[in-house]
Amino acid sequence: MNYSIICYILCKILDFAALFMALPCLVGIIYTEKAAWSFAAVIVVCLAVSLAGRRFKPTSKVFYAKEGFVAVSLSWILLSLVGAVPFYISGEFPTYLDAVYETVSGLTTTGSTILTDVEGLSYSIQFWRCFTHWIGGMGVLVLILAILPLSGSYNMHLMRAESPGPSVGKLVPRVKSTAMILYGIYILITFLQVIALLAAGMGLYEALTLTFSTVGTGGFGLLNTSIGSYSTVVQTIFIVFMLLCGINFQLYYLLLIRKPKDVLRCEELRYYLGIVFLSAALIAFNVRGFFESAFQAFHHALFQVASVMTTTGFATLDYDVWPEFSKTVLFLLTLLGACAGSTGGGFKVSRLVILWRCVKNEVSQASHPRSIRKIHMEGHIVEEGTLRSVQVYTAIYVLLFLVSLLLVSLDEFDFVTNISAVAANFNNVGPGFHMVGPAGNYSQFSGFSKVVLMFDMLAGRLELLPVLVLFSPRTWRKF
Amino acid sequence: MNYSIICYILCKILDFAALFMALPCLVGIIYTEKAAWSFAAVIVVCLAVSLAGRRFKPTSKVFYAKEGFVAVSLSWILLSLVGAVPFYISGEFPTYLDAVYETVSGLTTTGSTILTDVEGLSYSIQFWRCFTHWIGGMGVLVLILAILPLSGSYNMHLMRAESPGPSVGKLVPRVKSTAMILYGIYILITFLQVIALLAAGMGLYEALTLTFSTVGTGGFGLLNTSIGSYSTVVQTIFIVFMLLCGINFQLYYLLLIRKPKDVLRCEELRYYLGIVFLSAALIAFNVRGFFESAFQAFHHALFQVASVMTTTGFATLDYDVWPEFSKTVLFLLTLLGACAGSTGGGFKVSRLVILWRCVKNEVSQASHPRSIRKIHMEGHIVEEGTLRSVQVYTAIYVLLFLVSLLLVSLDEFDFVTNISAVAANFNNVGPGFHMVGPAGNYSQFSGFSKVVLMFDMLAGRLELLPVLVLFSPRTWRKF
Repeated sequence: MNYSIICYILCKILDFAALFMALPCLVGIIYTEKAAWSFAAVIVVCLAVSLAGRRFKPTSKVFYAKEGFVAVSLSWILLSLVGAVPFYISGEFPTYLDAVYETVSGLTTTGSTILTDVEGLSYSIQFWRCFTHWIGGMGVLVLILAILPLSGSYNMHLMRAESPGPSVGKLVPRVKSTAMILYGIYILITFLQVIALLAAGMGLYEALTLTFSTVGTGGFGLLNTSIGSYSTVVQTIFIVFMLLCGINFQLYYLLLIRKPKDVLRCEELRYYLGIVFLSAALIAFNVRGFFESAFQAFHHALFQVASVMTTTGFATLDYDVWPEFSKTVLFLLTLLGACAGSTGGGFKVSRLVILWRCVKNEVSQASHPRSIRKIHMEGHIVEEGTLRSVQVYTAIYVLLFLVSLLLVSLDEFDFVTNISAVAANFNNVGPGFHMVGPAGNYSQFSGFSKVVLMFDMLAGRLELLPVLVLFSPRTWRKF
Repeated sequence: MNYSIICYILCKILDFAALFMALPCLVGIIYTEKAAWSFAAVIVVCLAVSLAGRRFKPTSKVFYAKEGFVAVSLSWILLSLVGAVPFYISGEFPTYLDAVYETVSGLTTTGSTILTDVEGLSYSIQFWRCFTHWIGGMGVLVLILAILPLSGSYNMHLMRAESPGPSVGKLVPRVKSTAMILYGIYILITFLQVIALLAAGMGLYEALTLTFSTVGTGGFGLLNTSIGSYSTVVQTIFIVFMLLCGINFQLYYLLLIRKPKDVLRCEELRYYLGIVFLSAALIAFNVRGFFESAFQAFHHALFQVASVMTTTGFATLDYDVWPEFSKTVLFLLTLLGACAGSTGGGFKVSRLVILWRCVKNEVSQASHPRSIRKIHMEGHIVEEGTLRSVQVYTAIYVLLFLVSLLLVSLDEFDFVTNISAVAANFNNVGPGFHMVGPAGNYSQFSGFSKVVLMFDMLAGRLELLPVLVLFSPRTWRKF
């Protein structure tokens, strides 16, 4: 293990943490809040530690996949621990553990909260909460890759470890340019949503913070009722941008370089939109009795489906009171998640499609053992390595899910609370059902359960392997 | 598809159905019950149809894996449809669909019932219910292979399609001899349990029927309280025989040919017993407040663990009132199931072990991409094909589970009822939680849900592929 280079990357993370916190600090100064001091203090400490750490220059350029995984995992953990400090020292969070939970939930774009009253927070703290979604959405290391003049083999290892999806495609030959393009698109979408919300009559602060929560597919809101008290037009803007951010960002690049036909040919996109609208239609039919008009039913069904499937976690109403069928659809969408290469979490649509084709192949081969068929996706043959990694990913996903369920059950809450809490955290959605439903929160869980759920959020956001590598003895062995 | 040979096998199934029903018919005659006539009538019709079918001699000897899967699936469906007729025409079941559900539940050794009052049944019907467990436990086609002078390639295809576990080992070179040995061991265990129960003071009828339910790892009881009203000694006999029947029957063969060291070396056995006793200890500690003594707590914990893990489904009490942690352990054991090659259902311990080693390998390989490690099990390298089939099995298992959950949720019962009903049927356990808990039953489900659950039971018992092959268009295509 090349410790010096990991130390170097962690120092960069501290620099960026200081940079990020300058924004909420500024918000605090504008609104003349005490919390601004909390941010200022943390910024100073971050910069000081980073400066001290710079003495240890990377002694070796060795940087393999192992270092990539470890660097990414530790970066996220460090950023969570540091990002939680202002929450805690501002006095607006009960314990440091709760503050860390909230930061992990923010950075992983989960949006599950331990707060019982979101509206009581100061402006700068609210801003920081929502801004962590934006940071985590596209990934902090992708940002570092885009900005800093890093070179060498480790770019790709970092990118691969942080990006979601079964296969990471570079848009252009250079990793740095790919990262810049991704962030460019991300900023463009952010800008568009802010404009749209301002045009709909929202104030700048509200438009900014809620946009951070949307484009990062996070789900932290400013009000205890989430998005329920906004107008239908505003809610529709959220639906559109949630769905846009659940799409693979590669497709926007294809649009930018004028290849719209390639976008239309994308199988994952078609399945994604198909599942969204089919689910919304099924739920709208199932809950039609709850609303005055079919439009209203479809509007709210579509909002909740878009919110859960893109793993955002906003809500316009308490869907925990909906019929069991609708809730089961939402539960399954929680497990599924959005497209690979989007800011959304979950199992990912492309993995489901590949898995489904593996299953069809296996059934077909069982009865015709001699015929061998290749599995295709997006017009290409899927390599054996990718197939195996998708299958093993499924296995890890299920095993981690069930172990988490067992550990969380020690708190003795009901089964639906436990299973939906694990599902919502593991897939970075946020709200589940019963105690952790859209009208509830995670405040009552024990410290132990919160740690388990934090682990799930990080494992889910980083797509399992980087976090698990930390626990493998082989990672730390010299050889 | 070689239809003539499948027709031939189905006629054999009718012969055996007639043979099996002779027993409950005899019970009906002894107790002078009307239901005896129902059995007699069905026996006559079965024999007549089989006689008529014998005109169509197999025209071709072509028999591949495809024919094996289709023959096994159709045999089980036919036997279920025929076995349900006496239930229905005896008037002791409300509808034919309910009777079929009960028969499928019996043959697949699930033990989930649609009856609200088991004690109201006549002796012969009770006997037939429990006897279907015994028939399904070791498999009806294995029995046919053991008895009939079939020869040729199709023995192995039939055996492979009906036997549980990731890999089917022939004990001896000839399939027929393997089948005979397996049934020999099965009958021996049956005999031993009957003796043990008689020695504990139970009557012959009760001892016989409950033994059928135990050694088949089924779970149909004679009383509405399942096994709760029997003495601790009798309950302990059940624990021992449930656990014995959850073990791979190959190990008994190794004992018979005096290779006890090979038995002790068996990894699956060690994991199986380890999981049983660890789970029992955890639950006993968790529920210690419910019982007067630690022994009582451990006794009941072990009974429930053995019952659920071997997918039997007996209960000594209503564990639905236990704390959430204990219920979650039982839920996870429901998903896991017993050893490969046993009469138990579920995912199987050996699959979990292989999967766990795949996961460890993947994590290790992620950080050291160049090092390739082989996965070992029971002292041998696991072949790539087996690894892939275990991984794809997991995928199919999860997908089928979730689709079933969605379909059953249309009935609008609560989530815990739905998910535990699907888990309990899919893994051939029987009881779940809430409405379908040990004190409940499946009577309230709609016809549609019952069909879904029947499909799950068959898919679970036959280990997914044989049933899915029926739905693959390629199976029925000529080429």
